[in-house]
Amino acid sequence: MIKNASLAEIGRMMLDADTILLFPHVSPDGDALGSCAALCRALRREGKTSWILLDEPVPEYLSFMDTEYCTEDMDIIEAPDVCVCVDCSEESRFAKRAGKFSEGRIRICLDHHATSGSFGDYYYIDGGEAATAQIIFKLLRETGLPVDGDVAESIYVGMSTDTGSFQYSNTTAETHRIAAELFESGMDHNRLIVALYQSTGYRRLRMESEILRNMELLADGKAAMAYVTQEILDEENAVLDDCEGVVDILRNIRGVELAAFLKEKNGEIKVSMRAKSYGNVDGIAVKYGGGGHVKAAGCTLVMPMEEAVDVMRRELCDYWEN
Amino acid sequence: MIKNASLAEIGRMMLDADTILLFPHVSPDGDALGSCAALCRALRREGKTSWILLDEPVPEYLSFMDTEYCTEDMDIIEAPDVCVCVDCSEESRFAKRAGKFSEGRIRICLDHHATSGSFGDYYYIDGGEAATAQIIFKLLRETGLPVDGDVAESIYVGMSTDTGSFQYSNTTAETHRIAAELFESGMDHNRLIVALYQSTGYRRLRMESEILRNMELLADGKAAMAYVTQEILDEENAVLDDCEGVVDILRNIRGVELAAFLKEKNGEIKVSMRAKSYGNVDGIAVKYGGGGHVKAAGCTLVMPMEEAVDVMRRELCDYWEN
Repeated sequence: MIKNASLAEIGRMMLDADTILLFPHVSPDGDALGSCAALCRALRREGKTSWILLDEPVPEYLSFMDTEYCTEDMDIIEAPDVCVCVDCSEESRFAKRAGKFSEGRIRICLDHHATSGSFGDYYYIDGGEAATAQIIFKLLRETGLPVDGDVAESIYVGMSTDTGSFQYSNTTAETHRIAAELFESGMDHNRLIVALYQSTGYRRLRMESEILRNMELLADGKAAMAYVTQEILDEENAVLDDCEGVVDILRNIRGVELAAFLKEKNGEIKVSMRAKSYGNVDGIAVKYGGGGHVKAAGCTLVMPMEEAVDVMRRELCDYWEN
Repeated sequence: MIKNASLAEIGRMMLDADTILLFPHVSPDGDALGSCAALCRALRREGKTSWILLDEPVPEYLSFMDTEYCTEDMDIIEAPDVCVCVDCSEESRFAKRAGKFSEGRIRICLDHHATSGSFGDYYYIDGGEAATAQIIFKLLRETGLPVDGDVAESIYVGMSTDTGSFQYSNTTAETHRIAAELFESGMDHNRLIVALYQSTGYRRLRMESEILRNMELLADGKAAMAYVTQEILDEENAVLDDCEGVVDILRNIRGVELAAFLKEKNGEIKVSMRAKSYGNVDGIAVKYGGGGHVKAAGCTLVMPMEEAVDVMRRELCDYWEN
């Protein structure tokens, strides 16, 4: 954990400001947007001018969130009193908006990703938190701002998505304690669950079923692999985004420790890999110029799909030989 | 909520006994088995003789749970001091073992299903609890028995499965508070998650992909339907159990409110239905001699699959006309 200010101090800086501009990372996910939305709403209630600055539309699966706080207008606030990057702590994670961020009189960073360096004038980066939304919850609490209704729901979205509905290993007792408080704040839990977990795209599901037809088990069932070609996408009138999460389905097969999913994109093959418990896919990714983490990594193979499938089949089988 | 004894009193009866026999309902699920396992383990630690009496093997997907406490031997304990039916409050829910249950000197019922009547000499039935495992947690606490290690893990299995990983509308602030305490007890959360949610059967997944090929959207996307025939099952070398949960996949499609899944079994068609938010599938089920709840119901159609698909297609379309 690295910080040079307490959450109460950071909250006080926001309360002392008139204009606060919020910067989630690119391709914002539930935690980035949920954290920003919670903060933005709480600050507006206090009479502040606050916006979430994006450089792309809100992703479709998060469009159920109230997006009236989001803007792509770089000039929405001139020379903001406070700029806050949320759920990211590197300029590269919001590159197109970095210039605007630097215009802030005070620049603050709130993040839960493990990182080596500090960022901004004031920062609070705690890799031990399951979600940045947990940090926002604490910040609001310590600043004396109410966490209820919309604010609670936004925090829940961040926590629920970043913990995989309380399943990932980042989940802690504290995550559950905060969730309990959010329930007591009167949030509409059912609405959030329907939006987050009961809203699979029909096209996505057709795609998934088509892809699973080519899945294969390898290494006596310890590895699984599947692929999607441009042809398969075209047949189902789908796009690569519709394949999001397929690699997790492969990893979730009983007995499977390593999973790989191959996607054809502009003539290259993008490989996503996962390990379940004790495996390490980072090693395989690095071998082919990619990288990532022990349990989630990827690489790009410049070759036809057929060859790429052969390469990955061999890697997933050879893995167990040492 | 109906009860004629407090949890502390019921716990005291168990501590005063030497032999305690536990009766989960037939086709035991995570909550029935988890609740029994937690109670059994806690009682054995106190030097009691305690067993979980089943009339069938533990289901494969729960076989990761320590099953040394389970037996199908009706004579494992002669004339038990205490018999407890767990997660059920009707003889019909454990019919083959009901005779044995009545042998108990004291008969106790612990359940969280909403029911109209009492059952047993002493009963504590609270339809407001998300899981019977929550009741067991409180019982152990109020009886002064430690909730740690195996006991905590068994309670977590019950709570997590009966709330769909904290997603179902039965989830409350208290559910999360108890989960927090279980985390602090040192349970192996990751092991449980892998076993419960990252252990999909390969055959199940192949089956699912095959079934989704015949799924259809109806009523402008407000309803979804799919079916499985004996022929499809045979092709994939699968059984009907491998189709468990397919109806939920259909319900979880964005925009879908009503879902129906048709299964061929011994020449009849079993129909499972789900509603998402405001729909009512019980009405359709009752019309065909079936029943259930507003959001989950089923019926049996004695006709060929082709006709059954026509019938259900019409029902799912006509539903919106009134």
